[in-house]
Amino acid sequence: MRILTLGGWLMALTLLPMAYGELNLIPQPAHAVPGQGKLKIDQSFRIALTGYREPRLERAAARLIEHLESKTGMPLTRNLSSDAAGATLEISTTAASSPVQKLGEDESYRLEVGPERARLTAPNPLGILRGLETFLQLVEADKDAFAAPVIQIDDQPRFRWRGLMLDASRHWMPADVVRRNLEAMAALKLNVLHWHLSDDQGFRVESKRFPKLQEMGSDGHYYTQQQIREVLEFARERGIRVVPEFDMPGHTTAWFVGHPELASAPGPYTIERKWGVFDPAMDPTRDEVYRFLDAFIGEMAALFPDDYFHIGGDEVNGKQWDRNPQIQTFMREHSLKDNIALQAYFNSRLQPIVTEHGKKVIGWDEIFAPTLPKDIVVHSWRGQKSLADAARLGYMGILSAGYYLDLMHSAAFHYAVDPVENEAAGLNAEQQARILGGEACMWSEYVTPLNVDMRIWPRAAAIAERFWSPQEVKDVASMYRRLAVVSRDLEWRGARHASSHHLMIQRLADDHPVGPLATLSDVVEPVKEYAREEARQYTSFTPLNRMVDATRPESDVAREFGNLVDRALAGGSDASSSRDQLRHWLTLWRANDAALEPALESSFLLQELIPLSKDLSALGSAGLEALEYLANGRKPDAAWLEKQQAFLDGAKKSRAELLLMVAPHVEKLVQTAGRP
Amino acid sequence: MRILTLGGWLMALTLLPMAYGELNLIPQPAHAVPGQGKLKIDQSFRIALTGYREPRLERAAARLIEHLESKTGMPLTRNLSSDAAGATLEISTTAASSPVQKLGEDESYRLEVGPERARLTAPNPLGILRGLETFLQLVEADKDAFAAPVIQIDDQPRFRWRGLMLDASRHWMPADVVRRNLEAMAALKLNVLHWHLSDDQGFRVESKRFPKLQEMGSDGHYYTQQQIREVLEFARERGIRVVPEFDMPGHTTAWFVGHPELASAPGPYTIERKWGVFDPAMDPTRDEVYRFLDAFIGEMAALFPDDYFHIGGDEVNGKQWDRNPQIQTFMREHSLKDNIALQAYFNSRLQPIVTEHGKKVIGWDEIFAPTLPKDIVVHSWRGQKSLADAARLGYMGILSAGYYLDLMHSAAFHYAVDPVENEAAGLNAEQQARILGGEACMWSEYVTPLNVDMRIWPRAAAIAERFWSPQEVKDVASMYRRLAVVSRDLEWRGARHASSHHLMIQRLADDHPVGPLATLSDVVEPVKEYAREEARQYTSFTPLNRMVDATRPESDVAREFGNLVDRALAGGSDASSSRDQLRHWLTLWRANDAALEPALESSFLLQELIPLSKDLSALGSAGLEALEYLANGRKPDAAWLEKQQAFLDGAKKSRAELLLMVAPHVEKLVQTAGRP
Repeated sequence: MRILTLGGWLMALTLLPMAYGELNLIPQPAHAVPGQGKLKIDQSFRIALTGYREPRLERAAARLIEHLESKTGMPLTRNLSSDAAGATLEISTTAASSPVQKLGEDESYRLEVGPERARLTAPNPLGILRGLETFLQLVEADKDAFAAPVIQIDDQPRFRWRGLMLDASRHWMPADVVRRNLEAMAALKLNVLHWHLSDDQGFRVESKRFPKLQEMGSDGHYYTQQQIREVLEFARERGIRVVPEFDMPGHTTAWFVGHPELASAPGPYTIERKWGVFDPAMDPTRDEVYRFLDAFIGEMAALFPDDYFHIGGDEVNGKQWDRNPQIQTFMREHSLKDNIALQAYFNSRLQPIVTEHGKKVIGWDEIFAPTLPKDIVVHSWRGQKSLADAARLGYMGILSAGYYLDLMHSAAFHYAVDPVENEAAGLNAEQQARILGGEACMWSEYVTPLNVDMRIWPRAAAIAERFWSPQEVKDVASMYRRLAVVSRDLEWRGARHASSHHLMIQRLADDHPVGPLATLSDVVEPVKEYAREEARQYTSFTPLNRMVDATRPESDVAREFGNLVDRALAGGSDASSSRDQLRHWLTLWRANDAALEPALESSFLLQELIPLSKDLSALGSAGLEALEYLANGRKPDAAWLEKQQAFLDGAKKSRAELLLMVAPHVEKLVQTAGRP
Repeated sequence: MRILTLGGWLMALTLLPMAYGELNLIPQPAHAVPGQGKLKIDQSFRIALTGYREPRLERAAARLIEHLESKTGMPLTRNLSSDAAGATLEISTTAASSPVQKLGEDESYRLEVGPERARLTAPNPLGILRGLETFLQLVEADKDAFAAPVIQIDDQPRFRWRGLMLDASRHWMPADVVRRNLEAMAALKLNVLHWHLSDDQGFRVESKRFPKLQEMGSDGHYYTQQQIREVLEFARERGIRVVPEFDMPGHTTAWFVGHPELASAPGPYTIERKWGVFDPAMDPTRDEVYRFLDAFIGEMAALFPDDYFHIGGDEVNGKQWDRNPQIQTFMREHSLKDNIALQAYFNSRLQPIVTEHGKKVIGWDEIFAPTLPKDIVVHSWRGQKSLADAARLGYMGILSAGYYLDLMHSAAFHYAVDPVENEAAGLNAEQQARILGGEACMWSEYVTPLNVDMRIWPRAAAIAERFWSPQEVKDVASMYRRLAVVSRDLEWRGARHASSHHLMIQRLADDHPVGPLATLSDVVEPVKEYAREEARQYTSFTPLNRMVDATRPESDVAREFGNLVDRALAGGSDASSSRDQLRHWLTLWRANDAALEPALESSFLLQELIPLSKDLSALGSAGLEALEYLANGRKPDAAWLEKQQAFLDGAKKSRAELLLMVAPHVEKLVQTAGRP
């Protein structure tokens, strides 16, 4: 058991023991047969590449060496052999992958670790890339040395499309942010980066054909075509497809700053600074719009090699269309009865353009119409029903409903969502096969390059396991244990989710000790779903420098505290030690406000935390009193119970856009103490 | 007070309060007159560049914006104005700096912060660069907003040469390591990177003229000339000179792998893998050696624009010379009575070559001979006496004795060393002015790119203050307080000293909780001086992945614990609270071994820590017992005292190349308790 917090370690060490014997693999492989013994990994480690050979494989082997060096601290040789004799790890494949990675391309591999050597085989380099990640995860220190357990793994993914969507429009995400998240994706065997490149708040790609798009629509924050090519190359090296999204016909304000002629109302336009759904939309009725899109998509289709082109299509509110008499006339003339029909018309014109440039269309639920060709992909933010409906009609789909990382749900929440459950469970096998997988979505209203990693990792690793591992892999406790391990490893791979949390908490603490602030941060979570929108008027200029921005989406301490409460109340053999540990936490929290107060009083950024800090200390007191009642068997009187409940009702409310996640667990202690 | 440790915060929060009123500036400026009020820094922050303007200034202003954004989390505008009206900070200078930064070039600036605006003026862009760092350090959060205090600062450095030497030969340091340390140097107003580029263990620069140097002498780890040009540009942007060192005639094994004809004994040679002083040395008696050096230095002189060229010259053991009959004959024929005379002869041939290529010579103590021209610089690893002797003869010098960061001394140790004290104190003003400053030295036997930042920062910041601030700035408590602040800020600038410590401790903890291991790490320090050499046979292949490599050079916890002991025993008004805090620490340590034992037992990397961990817990017990005696006024019996002293004598000994730094403080408690 391991909780990576500044404040929480004192207790963490006494929490659940690690389930020894279970491997630290995430995602769990499809089939694994453990053996006896271990393969020692020391400075004699050598890789041999046998069979088909290409530079990408050589670089992948070199990266494995680099990652093994990071993981062990041992300098290793970079020399690759082509002779299996003398090699610790033989890598062997028979043929090249597709020059442009294809949807559904074979990603299977076999990894055999013996006591003397290991062998990784796969039909193509893509499978080798996946298997190398598994091998790396197997290596750990034991009593004698670094070693990988003897095992035979036969692995392939459950879903073909395992994506992460990154919104680079609402907050700009420089190329190095994209690269370090691609590196983390590779570690989790994710295989699609869906790059949300345009929206009302920014147009983020250099168009040489229409340079006003980025020059006027991006505040100077856009990817040059050279940068994009470098990112694409970086992704291909790691077996990751990159699907660009240019959201149309809505979410297009940033296009219109430079090209108001595309809009359904006259300009001028400025870059949108607020969050939400806005009126501007492309005019579906004018041929010049399609001529523009033809030229633009032609340029982008040449830049992005993937077969798929994401056209967005979500959240067109239709207000510009309603207000434009020429559009209304057009709709009447073409018997388009409503804006849904008008958008379908738009898509019916757009799709052939995309097809003509060699791409297949993917778009959000709203684009779906049974008139579209069968090779389109429906990307559902609404749920499995959209996918099931489309699948019955022969259409493919991927799921993102339930996988929105910006909504601040727990890893367990996302882990429980399955693309082929709920409405999709009733599909026959052929229909179900049309559900290609899913994508975790990182919308960027409330993230910056500084905290975006913290919003993605490690939670997206639970989603990655859902997409890769067999459907029956569902043990939440096991997932959390392995999530903690991969979370540590991802920092070595360059993700900044842990380090940026530390940096941000220290920045908030300023000259004050960071510990008490970390203790508070460890037990709170940002408000859920869209509650931040209601809390205050955010814009793209609003500093994201408060506790809510520095705090992790999920409180490990609160989850473990809740487990302790359950064990203490269940009265099993560990009830007594659980009570001791509860007391330790509660005592820590009771004392925390006094320690934290000077910092909270001295900084305008921290003052909003004063009520939360006071409540945390009061939760400590309430919990300790409840434990005391439970221990001595006396019942509290009604006045005490009433007072505590009133306090707890308040403590559960959000303040500073944060929730005290331990409040419900303390409530359980209090209510149990009061139960006759 | 702020201690940035994983384990230590519980107590840290109750330690010394911050000395409010003192500014968080490091190095302290030469003159500062604080005023009333503050300049608010919010999103309306604007910079105006008036007066002389050049791209480097514009980029420096843009970097200030970027750093302010990092420090505050506020998005700021990047637009620079040339009109002071409406600007928050006006930057004004009159003329360009020298195209190649010169030794002694004016670095002064004036920074006036008023309640409405700030103005930074300097004779040239170099002074502006220094002043921008001061401005950045002034900005902090207060009750209402981010703000800089109203103040007038007139500042200039005490010494002209304020350097950091980085050894990229013994362990390879990629260009990004150099860059992030240059960034940190800039934050501390250091102005010379002394780049140790060749040694027995590696030749690290691409020579196009003699490519066998890097091809055969570097294991493929060398800087291309393009990379060097980029680093030089990066340094110039930050007002930092870069002085290359090619150590000659000893420390040259790596040259001889490709060019054995330069050596004083026939080859073949291989790259040296051990640490120490080795026999190979250039042959000073053959003209072809000087012809080679002429061509090589010509190439390097064109690559590195600085006026100075470091020729090394240290630690020639002379054994190859002694064994070479031709060299012995030469010495007799030229009346060179010993190897010192032979090295002086070598230097007398080398120096004109360096001069001919437009450079001035700098070299270690050993190069000094009164026959050399007066523009050479003596770089002393021996002490102020070398500098004083040279200065009396009219020679310039810089000090590195006392500033070796690899020897694991405390910041206070380095802070107490002054280039013009000791033997140099007796110099007259003219002679003293020949002592140009000094350099902190980071020799790399025991550091890798992963932990090198941790060895340099924050301790080098104390040395930077010694070089910049007035001689009378000597308050150690103030230095440590400000060091903690700058340490936090340096991570935002890209230095990895804190984050890599966390990564390495977590790697050691593996699947176990990191807290108890951090608690142990927080109270130990690596052994001092050259004790690691004696502990085991290290080579350049030895993994540096143990606790001694992950542990910080200086234990903040031990220092603060020592202060608490002193306050508790002094019996002042805070004695009682100090005793409480001592008890808290001691209780934590007493319990730590039980928490840590499972991790220590399970990993071959941690087993060596078992005795240290047991001793830490025993120190906790001993300290608590001593406190108990002190509290109740009873005296312990002789048997107790004897037992404790025997234990303490053992606990003070190094194990696993680590020292338990709290042992002497606990000893003080025990001995005081036992005193009649």
